[in-house]
Amino acid sequence: MYIIGERINGMFRDVGAAIQAQDESVITDLAQRQVAEAANALDVNVGPVAEDAVAAMVWLVETIRKVTDVPLCLDSTKVDVIRAGLEACEGNAIINSTTGEAEKMAQLFPLAVEFNCEIIGLTIDENGVPAKAEGRMEVALKLVATAMESGLPTDKLYVDAVILPVSALQDNPPEVLKAISQIKMLADPPPKTVIGLSNVSQNAAFRELINRTYLVMALGVGLDAAIVDPLDTELMDAMIAAEMLLNHAVYSKDFLKAYRKS
Amino acid sequence: MYIIGERINGMFRDVGAAIQAQDESVITDLAQRQVAEAANALDVNVGPVAEDAVAAMVWLVETIRKVTDVPLCLDSTKVDVIRAGLEACEGNAIINSTTGEAEKMAQLFPLAVEFNCEIIGLTIDENGVPAKAEGRMEVALKLVATAMESGLPTDKLYVDAVILPVSALQDNPPEVLKAISQIKMLADPPPKTVIGLSNVSQNAAFRELINRTYLVMALGVGLDAAIVDPLDTELMDAMIAAEMLLNHAVYSKDFLKAYRKS
Repeated sequence: MYIIGERINGMFRDVGAAIQAQDESVITDLAQRQVAEAANALDVNVGPVAEDAVAAMVWLVETIRKVTDVPLCLDSTKVDVIRAGLEACEGNAIINSTTGEAEKMAQLFPLAVEFNCEIIGLTIDENGVPAKAEGRMEVALKLVATAMESGLPTDKLYVDAVILPVSALQDNPPEVLKAISQIKMLADPPPKTVIGLSNVSQNAAFRELINRTYLVMALGVGLDAAIVDPLDTELMDAMIAAEMLLNHAVYSKDFLKAYRKS
Repeated sequence: MYIIGERINGMFRDVGAAIQAQDESVITDLAQRQVAEAANALDVNVGPVAEDAVAAMVWLVETIRKVTDVPLCLDSTKVDVIRAGLEACEGNAIINSTTGEAEKMAQLFPLAVEFNCEIIGLTIDENGVPAKAEGRMEVALKLVATAMESGLPTDKLYVDAVILPVSALQDNPPEVLKAISQIKMLADPPPKTVIGLSNVSQNAAFRELINRTYLVMALGVGLDAAIVDPLDTELMDAMIAAEMLLNHAVYSKDFLKAYRKS
C-alpha cells in the first residue's frame, strides 16, 4: 500500500501551533518519524488557523524539504495554495484534491499536467457526495475522462471514493468498499484508489479499531493508497499483515519488521 | 457473522486430557464461555487421541448438552462418528464436513437430509486442494449440484474454500478471498461460505494478528461464517467492528458490548 502520512495538518493542535510560531522542529520531527514508520508520501495541510495560507504552505514545504525528499501531498481546497506548494517542492507532489465539479477539474487537471504530478480526485460533484457506489462510479468516470482529455495518464489519478463517518451514515462504508472494488475497471492503465481513512471514525468510539478494520477491508477489495497516521502502530501492523496475506509483501517470521525496513 | 467456536477439539491439550479422563467440567466450561462470548454454534472434534472415537463424540455431545442447546458442528473425517454425534444431539447440528469427492458426498449429503441439518463442504476433490480460485469454484459447483440432487436446500450448504497456511503457500490466501466473493453466485438461495480461520496462521509468527486481519478481509468480501476462537478478544473486537462497518450490526458508542449481548 502507498502510505500517505496524515500528521502534518494544521488541524492537529501541535502542527497548528508550530505553523503560528514558525517552529521548524515540530514539523521536521513529524516528517522524519512518519517516513521512518514507512510513509511513502506526506500530506501537507495548513489547517484552518493560518492567516496567510499560501505563505504557510510554502513554509511547511520548505521546512519538510530540509529533512526528506518523499512526495508531498498538497492538501488544500484553494488552487493558489496548491500552486504555491507545487512551486516550492518543484513538482515532486500529489495534488490533494480536485472534485468531479467541472470548475474544479478545469483548474486542477491542467496544474497536474503542468507540474507532471499525480492528483487525487474526490467522487463529489455539483450534487454533493453520492449516496451509493453507482453514483460514486459516475463521478469517478468524469474524473477519468477529464484526466484523459487533459493529457494526464490515468494512472496518475487517485480516485478517492469519500468515506463518511460511520457514526453518522452507517450505510456509507460498504458503498465505498463497493466503489473501490470497481474503480480500477474504468480505464487502462487503471486509476489508483485512495481513501482519507480517519474520516470513517469521526465522532465514533474505538476510533483506532474502526480505522484499522476498515483499512484492512479496503485493502482486501483492492485499495492502492491511504492517507493515514503511520505513527499508529496497530494500524500499521494490521496494514502490513493484510499486504502480506494478499501476497503483496513477502511472508517471513519477521514480516512486520521487514516491511518497515523495505 | 455466524460464529462457530473452535475450542472443543481434542487437538487442544486441555480438551484431549478431559476426553481421556471423562472430566465434564473442562468441556462444559469451554462450552459456556464460548457461548457467552457470542458463539452461535460449537465445533466438536474428538481429536487424534481418543481410542473409541464414536464413544468420545457421544460423550462430548451429551456433556455439552447439559449446559447449552446451540447447534453443534460435528467435526470428523469418519462417517460413523458424525452419525453417532447426530443421533446424540438429535439433529440440531452441522456436519463438518464432506469434501467434493464423489464417495464422501454420497455418504454425507443423505445424512444431512436424514437429520435435516446443515453441512460444510470443503473445496477438495479427488485431485486435492485446487491451487486457484477457479478450481475451488469447480468443486463448489459439484457440492451445490449434489445438494440439489440430494434434496438439501442449497442454503443449508456451507462451502469452505479451504484456507492453507500463509507461511507455506503465500499465493493461497488471496485465491480463497476470490473464491469466497464468487461462491454465493452459484445458486439461489445462495450457499453460505465458511472458513476454518486458524489454518491461515499455522506455523506463522504473529498468529492472532494474521487471524484477525484475514477474517476482516474475508468478511469484507462476503464471508458468512467462520470456525474461530471466540475467547480471542481482539479477534472478536475486529470481527464486530467489521460487521458494524458492513452495516450488518448497528453502530452505537457501545457497539462492541451491544453485539456480544445480542
